[in-house]
Amino acid sequence: MSGQGLGAARFFRRAGPFRLSELAELAGCELRAPQGAGERMFSGVAPLQAAGAQELSFLDNRRYLPVLDATRAGAVICAPAFAGRVPQGCAALVTRAPYVAWARIAAHFHPAPAVRPGVHPSAVIDEGAQVDPQAEIGAFVQVGAGAVIGAGTRIASHAAIGPGVVIGACCRIGQHVSLSHARLGDRVTLHPGARIGQEGFGFALTESGFLTVPQLGQVVIGDDVEIGANSTIDRGSATDTVIGAGSRLDNLVQIGHNVRLGRCCIVVAQAGISGSTELEDFVTVAAQAGLIGHIRIGAKARIGAQAGVMSDVASGADVIGSPAMPFREFFRNVAVLRRLARRPEASADGPAD
Amino acid sequence: MSGQGLGAARFFRRAGPFRLSELAELAGCELRAPQGAGERMFSGVAPLQAAGAQELSFLDNRRYLPVLDATRAGAVICAPAFAGRVPQGCAALVTRAPYVAWARIAAHFHPAPAVRPGVHPSAVIDEGAQVDPQAEIGAFVQVGAGAVIGAGTRIASHAAIGPGVVIGACCRIGQHVSLSHARLGDRVTLHPGARIGQEGFGFALTESGFLTVPQLGQVVIGDDVEIGANSTIDRGSATDTVIGAGSRLDNLVQIGHNVRLGRCCIVVAQAGISGSTELEDFVTVAAQAGLIGHIRIGAKARIGAQAGVMSDVASGADVIGSPAMPFREFFRNVAVLRRLARRPEASADGPAD
Amino acid sequence: MSGQGLGAARFFRRAGPFRLSELAELAGCELRAPQGAGERMFSGVAPLQAAGAQELSFLDNRRYLPVLDATRAGAVICAPAFAGRVPQGCAALVTRAPYVAWARIAAHFHPAPAVRPGVHPSAVIDEGAQVDPQAEIGAFVQVGAGAVIGAGTRIASHAAIGPGVVIGACCRIGQHVSLSHARLGDRVTLHPGARIGQEGFGFALTESGFLTVPQLGQVVIGDDVEIGANSTIDRGSATDTVIGAGSRLDNLVQIGHNVRLGRCCIVVAQAGISGSTELEDFVTVAAQAGLIGHIRIGAKARIGAQAGVMSDVASGADVIGSPAMPFREFFRNVAVLRRLARRPEASADGPAD
Repeated sequence: MSGQGLGAARFFRRAGPFRLSELAELAGCELRAPQGAGERMFSGVAPLQAAGAQELSFLDNRRYLPVLDATRAGAVICAPAFAGRVPQGCAALVTRAPYVAWARIAAHFHPAPAVRPGVHPSAVIDEGAQVDPQAEIGAFVQVGAGAVIGAGTRIASHAAIGPGVVIGACCRIGQHVSLSHARLGDRVTLHPGARIGQEGFGFALTESGFLTVPQLGQVVIGDDVEIGANSTIDRGSATDTVIGAGSRLDNLVQIGHNVRLGRCCIVVAQAGISGSTELEDFVTVAAQAGLIGHIRIGAKARIGAQAGVMSDVASGADVIGSPAMPFREFFRNVAVLRRLARRPEASADGPAD
Repeated sequence: MSGQGLGAARFFRRAGPFRLSELAELAGCELRAPQGAGERMFSGVAPLQAAGAQELSFLDNRRYLPVLDATRAGAVICAPAFAGRVPQGCAALVTRAPYVAWARIAAHFHPAPAVRPGVHPSAVIDEGAQVDPQAEIGAFVQVGAGAVIGAGTRIASHAAIGPGVVIGACCRIGQHVSLSHARLGDRVTLHPGARIGQEGFGFALTESGFLTVPQLGQVVIGDDVEIGANSTIDRGSATDTVIGAGSRLDNLVQIGHNVRLGRCCIVVAQAGISGSTELEDFVTVAAQAGLIGHIRIGAKARIGAQAGVMSDVASGADVIGSPAMPFREFFRNVAVLRRLARRPEASADGPAD
Repeated sequence: MSGQGLGAARFFRRAGPFRLSELAELAGCELRAPQGAGERMFSGVAPLQAAGAQELSFLDNRRYLPVLDATRAGAVICAPAFAGRVPQGCAALVTRAPYVAWARIAAHFHPAPAVRPGVHPSAVIDEGAQVDPQAEIGAFVQVGAGAVIGAGTRIASHAAIGPGVVIGACCRIGQHVSLSHARLGDRVTLHPGARIGQEGFGFALTESGFLTVPQLGQVVIGDDVEIGANSTIDRGSATDTVIGAGSRLDNLVQIGHNVRLGRCCIVVAQAGISGSTELEDFVTVAAQAGLIGHIRIGAKARIGAQAGVMSDVASGADVIGSPAMPFREFFRNVAVLRRLARRPEASADGPAD
C-alpha cells in the first residue's frame, strides 16, 4: 500500500480489502477490465498520482488526463468518454457519475466513525432536557432545560445547546457549536464553531442611541442540511429563519434574520445573505457573494463569486458583478472597458486625470 | 392566540396580557380606534400575515401595504401616512417612529431572561479575580487572575475571560467568547464566538522569515456596544483598539489593531477595517466593505456594501465601489459602461479581443 | 513613566530597566546620541506622541514625521534617512530595518508569558494521548486518543484536540481552537477560534439530493506558521491541505480542501482560497481577496485587496480587481471609465438608460 494513500490510519477507520467486482457493483459502475480482474482485491483509495496496484482512483476533470496516462492505480473510476484513456493493466470503472461512484467507494473503505451512545461525565445536562439514550454527548457539552436530542445524534465536545432546542436523529453537532432558539431536522451536520440562533442585527435609532429590537423568531433547519465551520445564522425577528432541507452552507457564511432558503441551496464560503431575503430551491451562491435584504432569488439561479446582488433574480438566471448583472453582460463590459483603455487616445491622455 | 405568533413559549418568556391603551402609552403612540378599544386585552405580537385579533403587529415598509390590507391583527403600529390604510376593526397605534414603538411593545411582552446571580460549579475562577456577587457565571467558564466582572453581568457557558480583563455592569458575554487584554464598559453585549483582544497581524520581514512584533496595546469597548457572533477585534499594537460607546458590529466583522471607532458607528456583517484606521461618530460601514489601514472616515459617512475604501472619506459622504467613489459617480459609471457595451460597434468587435 | 506607555502591567509582563547601549546592540542599531547617553536607563516603549524621557519609540512611516518633531521620547528607532529629524536631546537608534529593531526591543521589555508545564485538573486527556511533561494544558481542554503534544507547547482553555493530531514543540494553541486530522510543526500559533481539519465542502449531486464525498486527507502545517482568530482550514479530500513553513494567515481567512501554500505566504483578513489552488513561496493575498479553485499562483505574486482571481498568476505579478488583472491595467480602466462618464455627451444621455 502506498504511503501516500488517502485515509491515513492515524485519522480514519479503514475497512476492506474488497473485491473489485463488488466495488463496481456497489458504485453502479460498468467494469471494463481483463478477464478475472473483477476477482482482484483492493485495499484502499488514492489520488491518481499516488495510487498503487491495489488502490482505486478516479478522474472527473479533463485537466488531469496527463496524470491518468501515468497512473499506476489498479483501477480508475471515470466517465465513458475517458475509459479509452485508462492505461493497460488498469481496470476502468465506467459511469456517467464518477464523483458519486468515488464517494460511495471511498466511504466503503473509510466508514464514518460510529456513534458511541452515552453522556461524557464532564457534560452538564439540565434535568429537564430529553437526551435519547442512543445519542452521544461529548466532554464539556452543556444542554439546557427543555432541549430534545434524537437517537444516533453526536454532540461533540464543548458544544452549547440552549434551552428548548430540538435536534433530530442522526445529526452531527461539531465542537464549540452554539445553538439556541432552533429546531433541527434529521441528519443535520453543523461543523465546528457554527453559531445558530443568536439575536439578529436589529435596532432602532432613538434620541439616546440605538434601541435593540427583540428578535422573537427561531431558526428552522431542514433534514440533511450541512452548515460550515464558523458560519453564523441569526434567528428570525418577525418570522423564522429557515434553511431548507438538503441545503449545504460552507464555512464563514452569514445568514441574516428572517432569511429563507429553499431545498438544496448551495452557499459557498464567506458569502452573506442579508435579512428577509428568500432563495427558492436549488439556488447556488458562490464564494464571497453578498445579497442585500428583502429580495427574492428564483429557483436554480446562480449567483457568481463576489457578486453584489441588489434586486430580485429570476429563476434560472446567472448573475455576477457588483452590482450584479447577467454573466454575458458582465464579461462583455469587462472586455469593452479593456479595449477602450487600450486605445491610443486613451493612453495619450495618461492613466489618470 | 395564533400558532404562528412570535415569541414561542419554548424559547421566550412571555408577559401579559396587556390593555391596548397601556401599550400605546408605553410606546408613545396615538391610539386611533373605535371607542372602548383601548380596554381590549392583547396577548402578544405577530407579523401582519399571522397576527390574530388579540395580537399586535406593525408596518414600517411601504412594500408590505398589501399585507396590511388583509391583516386580521387586532392592532397595528404604523406611521401617520399609513394610518388610513389600517383595516376596519383593527386599531392603529400611530407614531413617527413605528420601529421604536414595536421594539418597546415586543420587549414588554417578551422580557429578556433575568440574570441569575451565582457561579456554576463547573466554572474555573482564579482566586485573584473579582466577580461581583450579582453576576451570573455559566458552565465551563474560565476567569483569569485579576479579572473584574461587574454586577448584573451574565457570562454564558464556555467563555474564556483572560487575566486582568475588566467587564462592567449588566454586560452579556455570549457562549464561547474569548476575551483578553480588554476593558469593557457597561451594558456591552458580545455574541457567541466573538474574539476580542488577541494579537494583531503584525510582523517584520527578516532574513530568516517573519518576526512577530509584540502587540502591547489593549481593546477598549465603550458602554452599550454590541459585537456580533464570530467577529474578531485585535488588540492594539502601538496604541489601543477602541470601539466607541453605542456602536453596533454585526457577525463576522474584522477589526484590525489600533483601529478607533467613534460613538454609535454601525459595521454590518463581514465588513473589515484594517489597522490604525479611524472612524468618527455615526459612521456606517455596510456588509462586506473593506477599509484599508491608516485612513480616516468622517462623521456620518456611509460606506456602501462591498466598497473598497483606499483613502480618507469626508464627513457625511456616501461612497461605494472598489475603489470607493461617491454613490452618484459609481452608478453613473455603471450606466455609462452598460451603454457603451451595448453600442453596435462594441458588439461588432465581439465580446473579447 | 507615561501613563499612556504600552504594555500595561495589568496585561503584560515587564522587564528592565535596560541601558540604552544594550538595547541598541540587541537590536543591531547604530546609536547616535550625545556622549554618555548610552548609559541612560530606559523603562519601556511607547508611541511617539506618548513616550516620555525614559521611553523608547520608533518611526517607520513618513506620514508620522510631524509627530517625530514633537516627541518627548528619550530615544527613537528610525531609518538613516530620518535620523536627522530626531529632536535634540532624543537619541537616535539608526537601522535599515526599524520595524525589526522595534520588535526586538519591545519583546525585550515585555517577554511573552512563560509556559507553565502541567495539565489543568479540569482537562480531559485520553489515556492513549502523549502529552510532553513540558507542555501546558489549560482548563476544559480535551485531547483525543493517539494525539501527540510536544514540549514547550501551550494549549489554552477550551481547545479541542482530536484523535491522532500531532502538535510539535513550542506551539501556542489558542482558546476554543478545534483541531482534527492535522499535523503541526514547531512554533506554530493558532489564534482563538481557529478551525483546522474539519471536512471540506465536497458533495456530489444525486437524484435524491447531495451526497457527501469522504474527505480523506489531512492538514499539514509547517514550522513557524500563524493562523488568525476564527479562520477555517479544511482538511484535504484527495490529497492534503498544506500550509508552508513561516506562512502567516490573518483572522477570518478561509482555506479550502487540498489547497497548498508555499513558504512564507501572507493571507490577510477575510480572504478566501478555494479548493486545490496552489500558492508558491512568498505570495501575498490581501484582505477580502478570493481565489477560485484549481489555479496556481507564482512565487512572490501579490494579490490585491478584494481581488477576484479566476486564473493562474505568474511569479512576481501584481493583480487586483474582479476579475483580477495587472495593477496598472486596473487603475487605467478606472481612470478611463471615470473620464468617459464625465464627458458632456455621457451626461447628456443621463445617468441611466
